[in-house]
Amino acid sequence: MSMTTREECQRRDAADPLARVRDYFLLPEGIIYLLGNSLGPLSIPSAQRVKHALDVEWGEQLLRSWPDGWWDLPVALGRRLARLIGARPEEVLVTDSTSVDIFKLVVAAARLRPNRRVIVTYENNFPTDLYILDEAAALTGLEVRRAKDRGALIEALDESVALIELTHVDYRTAEMAPMVEITKAAHDAGALVIWDLAHSIGAVPVDLSAADADFAVGCTYKYLNGGPGAPAFVFAAARLHDELHQPLTGWHGHARPFGFEPTYEPASGIRRFSTGSPPILSYAALDGALDVFEAVDLGALFEKSRTLSQLLIDRLEPLFSSGRLELGSPRDVMVRGSHIALRHANAGAIVAQLEAQGVLTDFRDPDYIRLGLAPLFVRYADVFDAADAITKIVGAA
Amino acid sequence: MSMTTREECQRRDAADPLARVRDYFLLPEGIIYLLGNSLGPLSIPSAQRVKHALDVEWGEQLLRSWPDGWWDLPVALGRRLARLIGARPEEVLVTDSTSVDIFKLVVAAARLRPNRRVIVTYENNFPTDLYILDEAAALTGLEVRRAKDRGALIEALDESVALIELTHVDYRTAEMAPMVEITKAAHDAGALVIWDLAHSIGAVPVDLSAADADFAVGCTYKYLNGGPGAPAFVFAAARLHDELHQPLTGWHGHARPFGFEPTYEPASGIRRFSTGSPPILSYAALDGALDVFEAVDLGALFEKSRTLSQLLIDRLEPLFSSGRLELGSPRDVMVRGSHIALRHANAGAIVAQLEAQGVLTDFRDPDYIRLGLAPLFVRYADVFDAADAITKIVGAA
Repeated sequence: MSMTTREECQRRDAADPLARVRDYFLLPEGIIYLLGNSLGPLSIPSAQRVKHALDVEWGEQLLRSWPDGWWDLPVALGRRLARLIGARPEEVLVTDSTSVDIFKLVVAAARLRPNRRVIVTYENNFPTDLYILDEAAALTGLEVRRAKDRGALIEALDESVALIELTHVDYRTAEMAPMVEITKAAHDAGALVIWDLAHSIGAVPVDLSAADADFAVGCTYKYLNGGPGAPAFVFAAARLHDELHQPLTGWHGHARPFGFEPTYEPASGIRRFSTGSPPILSYAALDGALDVFEAVDLGALFEKSRTLSQLLIDRLEPLFSSGRLELGSPRDVMVRGSHIALRHANAGAIVAQLEAQGVLTDFRDPDYIRLGLAPLFVRYADVFDAADAITKIVGAA
Repeated sequence: MSMTTREECQRRDAADPLARVRDYFLLPEGIIYLLGNSLGPLSIPSAQRVKHALDVEWGEQLLRSWPDGWWDLPVALGRRLARLIGARPEEVLVTDSTSVDIFKLVVAAARLRPNRRVIVTYENNFPTDLYILDEAAALTGLEVRRAKDRGALIEALDESVALIELTHVDYRTAEMAPMVEITKAAHDAGALVIWDLAHSIGAVPVDLSAADADFAVGCTYKYLNGGPGAPAFVFAAARLHDELHQPLTGWHGHARPFGFEPTYEPASGIRRFSTGSPPILSYAALDGALDVFEAVDLGALFEKSRTLSQLLIDRLEPLFSSGRLELGSPRDVMVRGSHIALRHANAGAIVAQLEAQGVLTDFRDPDYIRLGLAPLFVRYADVFDAADAITKIVGAA
C-alpha cells in the first residue's frame, strides 16, 4: 500500500490492525505527539490501575496490600516485561531507576571477573551511563575505556576487559548496536555485556535469550508508557543468578526480609536486585500500561515502527537530497530504532515552530530534532502531517 | 484532664485542637489503625494530588510537566520536609529509597574522612542500615564496628572512626537515641554522624540544626503518610555541600543535566544527591500528604504523641505490674518515639486476636507487639479501646 498522499496514509491507518490500540490512550486533542520516546502518554488501564492502587489497595486495604500484591509487584512486573525483550519470566525485575540499576549491574558484573580491570563503552553513550560507569569503576578499582566506534570497541577486547556497557539504541541517532555480534565478541574474549534498552523496549525487537545476553537494564517511561519517572528494570541471565552479588543490599533483596536478620543474605534469583521499598503508585501505573501490550502482536508492532520511520524518511527525501535537512539516523531500517533524528543548524527554532503547530518533537544538542514514532498510537497520517509541517518550515527558511 | 474512663478520653478528643485533622484521612470504618508507624493512611489531599498528577500533569500536559514542576519536585518536597526535622529548606532532598540513600550518604561521608577507616553503628540497628553499611564499607575499604549500646559506642570513638550511622528511634522498642549528645561526641572525635529518621519524622521533635547534625536520611511512608513505598529523603548540612561527592552519579544530579556532557559535574547544593528520574506519581502522593502538616502546630502534634503513648502505658499498667505483659519501650516519655512495644511470649497470636477485633498492630521477632500512635489521626478513645482489648486478651490467656 503506497503512502504518497494523505488519503493513502489515512487508508493505511483504517486498515491497520493496531489502530484500535490508540483508543486506549488519553492523548490531548489537536496535537501530534512524537515524544513517546521520551514520555509515553497516559492510557486508560494505567489511570484505572493507579486509582485502584490509591483508593482500594492503599485507602481501604492498607498494610494488607503488602503481602497481598505489593511485595511481589517488582517480580510480577518483571515477568510481564520479559516477553518484550526475549527474556525468561524469572530473569527480569522492576526496581529503582536506570542509573541506580546500572550501578548495581556494573558492580555485580565486575565481581564475576575479579582479575580483569577494564570496562569498555562507547564515548557517545547516554551521559548517565557514562557517569555511573566512571563512578562504579572508581569505587571498584576499574578503569573505563570509551571507544569511538564499533571497530575500536571490538579492538579493545582483550583479557583485561571485564565488561562492556552499551546502549542498544542510541538516544540521539536511533542507531541500533548489533547485540548478537557484540555479545559474541565479548564472550569470546571472556567479557560480559550490559545492554541499556531504554530506547529499545516496546518499540524494536530485542531477543536477549537468542543473543545469550548477560545483563540488561532500561526504563519504562518511554515506549512502555509507564508514567513519569516510572521504575526501571534489570535483566540478568538465569545462568548467572546464583553468583551475583550486587552492592545495594537493602532489606527488600534479602532472602528472609521479615526475619530482620543481622547479616545480609541475598534472595534467590532476580529478586536479589531489590533494595528498598518500591514506590507502589508508580509501579501500578506501569502495571496498567502493560495491559495495552497484552492486546498487541509484537511482530506487527515492530513492523509498524519501521514502516512509520520509513514513511517519515520518504516524505522528507526532497529536503535531504537538496541539502536543506540532514538525516541523523541510519537509512537501514534494520539498524534503526523507533525515532528519527534530523539535523539542522536551526534545530531548536524548528522544534519550537513545530510545537506552535501542535507537532511535538524535541531538540538535543547540538543540532538534533528527534521525532519519536511510537507504534502504539502514532498514525501514518500523523507522520504525513509532521513531514508536511517540517517541509514547510525548513523549505521556507 | 484525667483519662481513666472511655468518656474522659472522648471528652479529651472533643477538646483536642488536632481532632479535626483526622477528617483529612480516608480511614476504613470500624478499625483502630495502629500501623501508622509502618504505612500511614491515605489522606484526601494525597488522593487529590495523585489524581491531578495523573489526569492533568501526565495526561494533558505531558512532557511540559517536567520543566513545569516535576523537575523541581524532589527539591520542593525537601523544602517542605525541612521544618519537620529542624533543617534549612535547602538542606533536604527527596530521592530514591532509604536503603539507596544510606549508601549514598555513607560513601559521601567516608570520602570526607579519607584517613579514617571505621564506621560505628549499633548492633540492633534496623537491618537494612546494617546491610548497606557492610556493603558500602566493603566497597570503600572501611570496617564496620557494631556497638552493643551507647557506652560501647562512645568508647569506640577514636581517631580511626570516620562516621557513625544510627537510627534515631529504634524500630522495635521506640527508644530514642540522644542526638545532641552523640553528635557532639562524634564531632569531638573528628567523626561524622548519619541519622536514620525513619521512625522519627512527623512524630517526634527533631532539630538537626540545633544538634549540628551532618547527615540524615529517612522514609516518608510512615508518619508522613506519603504512600506505599513513598520516596525517601536525605539531609546534608549546608556547610558540607560543596565537598560532597556521592557515588550514584546519575544525570539528575548533574550541574547541567540537559547539557548531556560526557563528564559528571555535581549540581550545586543538595540536588547533587539526585540520581535518576523520580517516580512522580509517588512524589505527588507525598506532596499531598504534606498538606496535612501545614495545618498543624508541630509542638501540639508531638505533645499529643507523648500523651497517647503515656495513656497506653497507664492503661496497661496492671498487666505490667502483674507480670502478664512486658513493656518493651522506655518508660521515660522524653526518650520514646511514637510507638509502643509490648513483649509477650504469644505476641504473634495476640496481634492476630487484636486484628480480629479490628485493632490493627504488628508483630516483630521475637516477641514484640508494636502499636503505632500516629498523633494526626489516632484518638485517645482509640488508645483506651486498644488497651481494653489487650487487657481482655492477655488477662484471659
